[in-house]
Amino acid sequence: MKALVYHGPGRKAWEDKPKPDIKVPTDAIVKILKTTICGTDLHIMKGDVPEVTDGRIIGHEGVGIVEETGGAVSSFKKGDHVLISCITSCGKCEYCKKGMYSHCIDGGWILGNLIDGTQAEYVRIPHADNSLYPIPGGADEEALVMLSDILPTGFECGVLNGQVKPGDTIAIVGAGPVGLAALLTAQFYSPAEIIMIDLDDNRLEVAKTFGATQLVNSGDGKAVEKVMTLTGGKGVDTVIEAVGVPSTFEICEAIVTAGGHIANIGVHGKSVTLHMETLWSKNISITTRLVDTVTTPMLFKTVQAQKLAPRKLITHHFRLDQVVEAYETFGNAAKEKALKVILTA
Amino acid sequence: MKALVYHGPGRKAWEDKPKPDIKVPTDAIVKILKTTICGTDLHIMKGDVPEVTDGRIIGHEGVGIVEETGGAVSSFKKGDHVLISCITSCGKCEYCKKGMYSHCIDGGWILGNLIDGTQAEYVRIPHADNSLYPIPGGADEEALVMLSDILPTGFECGVLNGQVKPGDTIAIVGAGPVGLAALLTAQFYSPAEIIMIDLDDNRLEVAKTFGATQLVNSGDGKAVEKVMTLTGGKGVDTVIEAVGVPSTFEICEAIVTAGGHIANIGVHGKSVTLHMETLWSKNISITTRLVDTVTTPMLFKTVQAQKLAPRKLITHHFRLDQVVEAYETFGNAAKEKALKVILTA
Amino acid sequence: MKALVYHGPGRKAWEDKPKPDIKVPTDAIVKILKTTICGTDLHIMKGDVPEVTDGRIIGHEGVGIVEETGGAVSSFKKGDHVLISCITSCGKCEYCKKGMYSHCIDGGWILGNLIDGTQAEYVRIPHADNSLYPIPGGADEEALVMLSDILPTGFECGVLNGQVKPGDTIAIVGAGPVGLAALLTAQFYSPAEIIMIDLDDNRLEVAKTFGATQLVNSGDGKAVEKVMTLTGGKGVDTVIEAVGVPSTFEICEAIVTAGGHIANIGVHGKSVTLHMETLWSKNISITTRLVDTVTTPMLFKTVQAQKLAPRKLITHHFRLDQVVEAYETFGNAAKEKALKVILTA
Amino acid sequence: MKALVYHGPGRKAWEDKPKPDIKVPTDAIVKILKTTICGTDLHIMKGDVPEVTDGRIIGHEGVGIVEETGGAVSSFKKGDHVLISCITSCGKCEYCKKGMYSHCIDGGWILGNLIDGTQAEYVRIPHADNSLYPIPGGADEEALVMLSDILPTGFECGVLNGQVKPGDTIAIVGAGPVGLAALLTAQFYSPAEIIMIDLDDNRLEVAKTFGATQLVNSGDGKAVEKVMTLTGGKGVDTVIEAVGVPSTFEICEAIVTAGGHIANIGVHGKSVTLHMETLWSKNISITTRLVDTVTTPMLFKTVQAQKLAPRKLITHHFRLDQVVEAYETFGNAAKEKALKVILTA
Repeated sequence: MKALVYHGPGRKAWEDKPKPDIKVPTDAIVKILKTTICGTDLHIMKGDVPEVTDGRIIGHEGVGIVEETGGAVSSFKKGDHVLISCITSCGKCEYCKKGMYSHCIDGGWILGNLIDGTQAEYVRIPHADNSLYPIPGGADEEALVMLSDILPTGFECGVLNGQVKPGDTIAIVGAGPVGLAALLTAQFYSPAEIIMIDLDDNRLEVAKTFGATQLVNSGDGKAVEKVMTLTGGKGVDTVIEAVGVPSTFEICEAIVTAGGHIANIGVHGKSVTLHMETLWSKNISITTRLVDTVTTPMLFKTVQAQKLAPRKLITHHFRLDQVVEAYETFGNAAKEKALKVILTA
Repeated sequence: MKALVYHGPGRKAWEDKPKPDIKVPTDAIVKILKTTICGTDLHIMKGDVPEVTDGRIIGHEGVGIVEETGGAVSSFKKGDHVLISCITSCGKCEYCKKGMYSHCIDGGWILGNLIDGTQAEYVRIPHADNSLYPIPGGADEEALVMLSDILPTGFECGVLNGQVKPGDTIAIVGAGPVGLAALLTAQFYSPAEIIMIDLDDNRLEVAKTFGATQLVNSGDGKAVEKVMTLTGGKGVDTVIEAVGVPSTFEICEAIVTAGGHIANIGVHGKSVTLHMETLWSKNISITTRLVDTVTTPMLFKTVQAQKLAPRKLITHHFRLDQVVEAYETFGNAAKEKALKVILTA
Repeated sequence: MKALVYHGPGRKAWEDKPKPDIKVPTDAIVKILKTTICGTDLHIMKGDVPEVTDGRIIGHEGVGIVEETGGAVSSFKKGDHVLISCITSCGKCEYCKKGMYSHCIDGGWILGNLIDGTQAEYVRIPHADNSLYPIPGGADEEALVMLSDILPTGFECGVLNGQVKPGDTIAIVGAGPVGLAALLTAQFYSPAEIIMIDLDDNRLEVAKTFGATQLVNSGDGKAVEKVMTLTGGKGVDTVIEAVGVPSTFEICEAIVTAGGHIANIGVHGKSVTLHMETLWSKNISITTRLVDTVTTPMLFKTVQAQKLAPRKLITHHFRLDQVVEAYETFGNAAKEKALKVILTA
Repeated sequence: MKALVYHGPGRKAWEDKPKPDIKVPTDAIVKILKTTICGTDLHIMKGDVPEVTDGRIIGHEGVGIVEETGGAVSSFKKGDHVLISCITSCGKCEYCKKGMYSHCIDGGWILGNLIDGTQAEYVRIPHADNSLYPIPGGADEEALVMLSDILPTGFECGVLNGQVKPGDTIAIVGAGPVGLAALLTAQFYSPAEIIMIDLDDNRLEVAKTFGATQLVNSGDGKAVEKVMTLTGGKGVDTVIEAVGVPSTFEICEAIVTAGGHIANIGVHGKSVTLHMETLWSKNISITTRLVDTVTTPMLFKTVQAQKLAPRKLITHHFRLDQVVEAYETFGNAAKEKALKVILTA
């Protein structure tokens, strides 16, 4: 089969690889129908994720058709259409039993990281019963690709951990795909105001069409002042960090109101300065989370009921064999006005 | 009347001051029976709390007898024995309605800070109906002084925010009075293991008699290693920070397990380094809080039912007019093996 | 002044009564601008609420202007526009401190019940600081009358107690004003399906325009079968009872799914049969509640942010001195297609 | 092998049965070391559980040694000592993912009910990875038999659902084994008062040694009055129903305080009368639950940490081949002063 293979920092190729086989009875082999590229994949390609080694097939999102199942797989059979979760879950370890699939002792984020991933014609999915979700006939499969990672990430790490409530004033720092996923899913809880903060006016305008009520361009270094003005000096009930650098985290610290929440989504490469000299008495919570995809069934229902429109996140389409070109586009997201790209096999 | 008055950094005196009067109809005047000294009072005396100005009467804890009430006070009358909360609560602002008394717009921590406090023969208590608690006849009033501040602080900021659960392994960094208050109240929830971390072997031994199951002296810089060894490399479900300096906060970050909680109690004067490069994917929460004393009624019931023994925290007794001497003892807590001192009028 | 006075079952009159005075320093006198009639008022008029005695002024909803305040009222002054809560809250008793204002030891539902109410030119509001809410300039005051009782009732007793979540399938039994209030506020949480059950096709059609996704007319005694068909035999995650008779409660018991919730709003006059022989193993919760109006500030924010449109509930308008006529209309709600009537002074 | 076999109402025998085999790859065969008899087994023997058919091996509790595992079992191997959960959980269905193992679509309570059970020399355990728990070396295996069913039942259905909190006043109706299990585990949360209600003075005395603070013999029909007197007319914060008949449920309804909780554990054969005419405005919750055993790992930790002493529940010992005699004793619990019996293979 063909697959996108990582060959060290800056080097990748769409090349031949052996089609995967069932290795243990809980595995399934899935033929990819549609996949996408994640911001994390760009980091991998730069060499920022040292766990990913030369020869690895990249990608951890997608929908497909079950090609083959191991002897212990009971929920799926050949021919079933399935959504692939970016998180592999054994369903029986201490962490899975608590709904912390991201920390599964035989899973977690391994696809396109520690094992071969989904930017390929076929992929082996370990613990298939717990790591795939059935797609009902007639569903919009392309839209569902957004449920592999980005929507549960925005929802679980940002909205749920941030405890967004009706009538709240919230802010989201970062209007990239994951920040926009938080924006879409925050509206499940009817906040009164959603302030979107980013450096890129184009992304802010997109955010407005997605439901943001206030836009703040932070390019002038005055994001904190602007948010405080917008909130009458009070700050926001919840702030969702969807960038992952020290300066954006410090914006969050400065605009959270007493009793509020900072919900981190961003993948951080460096430590940040936590201003405990002011925060110690402010009755706030700060949360971190690698997505568990424990809410995928709930999100599925909201998509089916048209309470959530994942398709909004899709800006570009390619054939799967155009994946290298798709990386070019996604890698120049600002210029290309790209959010999520769909690769169709 | 006589009172302990702050006269700038390093200067205090037990001296004459006018007896306080009712200023607004929601005030009460309370004759102090017993009071104590808080670690915060030591900070004030050093000049670390600039809001406290020359001439201020210090102290925010105590029990007493109602001497006089304003016209709008309905829950108390002259002669009632009362517990004074360190937090003043109006009961009607946005924050009080949410149980965040610490951020009351006409209260919060003001006693012995922005207004005169309890290390005096009499004290004016604003919003008396919401800031005093009735003491039933026959109660151990001396023990109840511990409910003015230290026990709700350990409980709310440490135990409740830290979400301590039956069977958990928890750690408390700092075996001073507030860390010990967290230790006592953590046992309401039956954790399996309580690891106490401090520099002082004497305090650690006290912690053992209070219910700690493991002791770690952090003087050798190896607290993290020791805790990881004690927990089989997993770390702890909840870690309560009861010191307030960067190095102890970093211990907390290093020993919290995936899915765990860091509950800050310590009053921090400096920012700390938050290792988001490792914590971002660890599914943890970090909380801060100025005590609200919203659990005082609950704590009262546990004392009455002998589920909580506040008296354990009391190590020294003085007369109220010996308050300067009491500060000497409390200020040399390690040498004097002092936890809380009681000053009796 | 003029007021609507109850004179025993079936007898009421719009007649002269003395204008109320401040009785205690926490009182305020409010000049009524707009009020309405509640289903409970109809019960009172029939004699179903024996606590209400001859001579009582009825009514517990409305907006008005502060006319006079007692000496201990600090949040309001003459001329302020205010929303009157149907629940009086002292803000300092055990129940108020827990947010259970409905059980306030010096309040609860007393307006138009144990003390004179709002269907009058003026009303005395006890504990004004905690029982009134400020109305900002430019607000739609008529719409806000719906926040005195019906919207917090539907929201707190139905939606919050019913734990409605994104993606859920819920049912509401009873499409009268309070059931419709639950319908409007349930949408704060983005359920996938909302099944509305009633005997009246007109009310069901109204429910559809308010956001119900499925309509079930229960007139044929087949509501349970129909709901089970609509839900593929599973039943609903949450069912909200908004009628208050045994037969509707039994529908709730029959359609709740395993792990689901029955949230009662209805005022019951008789006991109901609880089928513990089937429910004991079904992992459900049943909740009851007299509205606390603790969410009024939250609801206020959702109205200001146009996430909630209370005006939808208003079908008829009268002058305050036409109140007897308004009762006629509201008392024949099905025929008149009446939901809520507005009486304007 | 030998096993206790049900042969229709009133008929059982200790007789030869084929040793069970692995049927599907997720099965394990466990050699029983110790088992016990449940009150439910007595009901089965009377014919009250029609799902149980002639020829069924009874029993759903026990500890044992893994004899053989199917090809998909990864957490256990031959020779491992294991605790058997009374609830079988597949770990991958909608219910298991929510922690509602009792409603597992391929499990739930099936042992000794729909499939052969544990009162035998060997038992087949489906979904072994999720339905067994490893027993560490040196553990008190006999005590752990109490974790198969009775302790998680008391804890989950009674204590967790009843939301027992520090300082609460709670009541438990029924001092049989499951009521006593609720009593033991309620103390995890440090309630101030635990009122035990039963008809049997012996059981009440046992309850006192287990931590009950007040005893009420309900034999005179005055349980409600007595509880109201003990609580100063307020009633209790949480009442746990551990009997399962209409009269005990009505006691619960009468003694729950405003804002309180009724947590049902009892297996009911008949409907009960729910006094909604008084409860509708009382802000209470009523919960039902078939035990999920989702807290078994937590309970395990509390036993290891000696915060819970399951051994207290064991009153009688028999050899496994004396099981018929053991039924006699357990069936005459009041006379024999029996709580739980241990059968040792």
